[in-house]
Amino acid sequence: MIIGKVVGSLFSTRKSEKLVGNKFMIVEPVDGMKADGERLVAIDIIGAGIGEYVLVAEGSAARIGCDMKDAPVDAAIVGIIDQGQNWSK
Amino acid sequence: MIIGKVVGSLFSTRKSEKLVGNKFMIVEPVDGMKADGERLVAIDIIGAGIGEYVLVAEGSAARIGCDMKDAPVDAAIVGIIDQGQNWSK
Amino acid sequence: MIIGKVVGSLFSTRKSEKLVGNKFMIVEPVDGMKADGERLVAIDIIGAGIGEYVLVAEGSAARIGCDMKDAPVDAAIVGIIDQGQNWSK
Amino acid sequence: MIIGKVVGSLFSTRKSEKLVGNKFMIVEPVDGMKADGERLVAIDIIGAGIGEYVLVAEGSAARIGCDMKDAPVDAAIVGIIDQGQNWSK
Amino acid sequence: MIIGKVVGSLFSTRKSEKLVGNKFMIVEPVDGMKADGERLVAIDIIGAGIGEYVLVAEGSAARIGCDMKDAPVDAAIVGIIDQGQNWSK
Repeated sequence: MIIGKVVGSLFSTRKSEKLVGNKFMIVEPVDGMKADGERLVAIDIIGAGIGEYVLVAEGSAARIGCDMKDAPVDAAIVGIIDQGQNWSK
Repeated sequence: MIIGKVVGSLFSTRKSEKLVGNKFMIVEPVDGMKADGERLVAIDIIGAGIGEYVLVAEGSAARIGCDMKDAPVDAAIVGIIDQGQNWSK
Repeated sequence: MIIGKVVGSLFSTRKSEKLVGNKFMIVEPVDGMKADGERLVAIDIIGAGIGEYVLVAEGSAARIGCDMKDAPVDAAIVGIIDQGQNWSK
Repeated sequence: MIIGKVVGSLFSTRKSEKLVGNKFMIVEPVDGMKADGERLVAIDIIGAGIGEYVLVAEGSAARIGCDMKDAPVDAAIVGIIDQGQNWSK
Repeated sequence: MIIGKVVGSLFSTRKSEKLVGNKFMIVEPVDGMKADGERLVAIDIIGAGIGEYVLVAEGSAARIGCDMKDAPVDAAIVGIIDQGQNWSK
């Protein structure tokens, strides 16, 4: 998983019907983390807000681990990082 | 998932029979997005046009999430981004 | 998927018995494509020749989509790109 | 798999219920290893401590190989490297 | 798959019980190959020696293709490249 900051959200009206009802958040991996600075779009099963630091799972883990095994989802916010922690180098 | 711009399409006459009937689109991830500038080929289940900004799912999500679980597909356009949104840094 | 050029082939006498009978081709992703210039080895189910431009599927798509679901294969040539098309930037 | 050094741990109170009870460790791949210097978050099924060098499995291997096939986990510490070995270039 | 050179081996006494009995080899992808120079750890089902050039499968292909579908393995040596071949640019 990676730690990222939620920097925005996204709307898509024309999309796979399997994606209907999901929130799409734009997440930017924090400095020093894998792919830092390279944003990705993740669904959010936790209810994260803009500016929060989150744990993102990628690949089949996002799809299967979030009970969406038949949906075209490859990244998901699966946790919100508790405040006051330090993960920087 | 990533946000990309559809920049072209592709024809392949000699291909796996499991791919017959699919449209192959060339997608370029937008600036600041994971693998920005590095194009990929995705099938299109939505009907995106050249120049549109789309949501692309990669890996097993593309195959299973698009009801093509037995096909050699590793990327798919699964949504078209609504106009007027900002995802740049 | 990615577009690559077939630049060579490879022989391996001592290999997994599940790979026996396969052709191993060396493919170089074209300029501007994901991982351009970084070669990979793909099995070939289409019959591509050296110098041809091909469509390569990676990950579980290669294995499952090419009817080799039990074989240690993570990349496959699944189509030959028709001539006369332009995918460069 | 990759070799990494455990450099920290992480707490997430609000998270997927499938992740409850897991330890999240921050791992930094060692120099010369794939993605060296790019940290990731892995669950720990072995009991590694800060400063130890570990073997990390990624992708579906982490989820399925650690008996968490339904959880949103894409990286796991699956071994602790014995001391006194040399893997640097 | 990628072509790599076996540059070392690794011991891990404390590890997942599903990994017991496996050999862990350190492999360095050759120049011009995907992720060249970035070492990874692969199990070896072929019996490769230090200095040999090998074919490495990654992802679920390593786990499922090597009859270890329940083990936390994401890379495997699945063939030894025959001598006298040229794959460099």
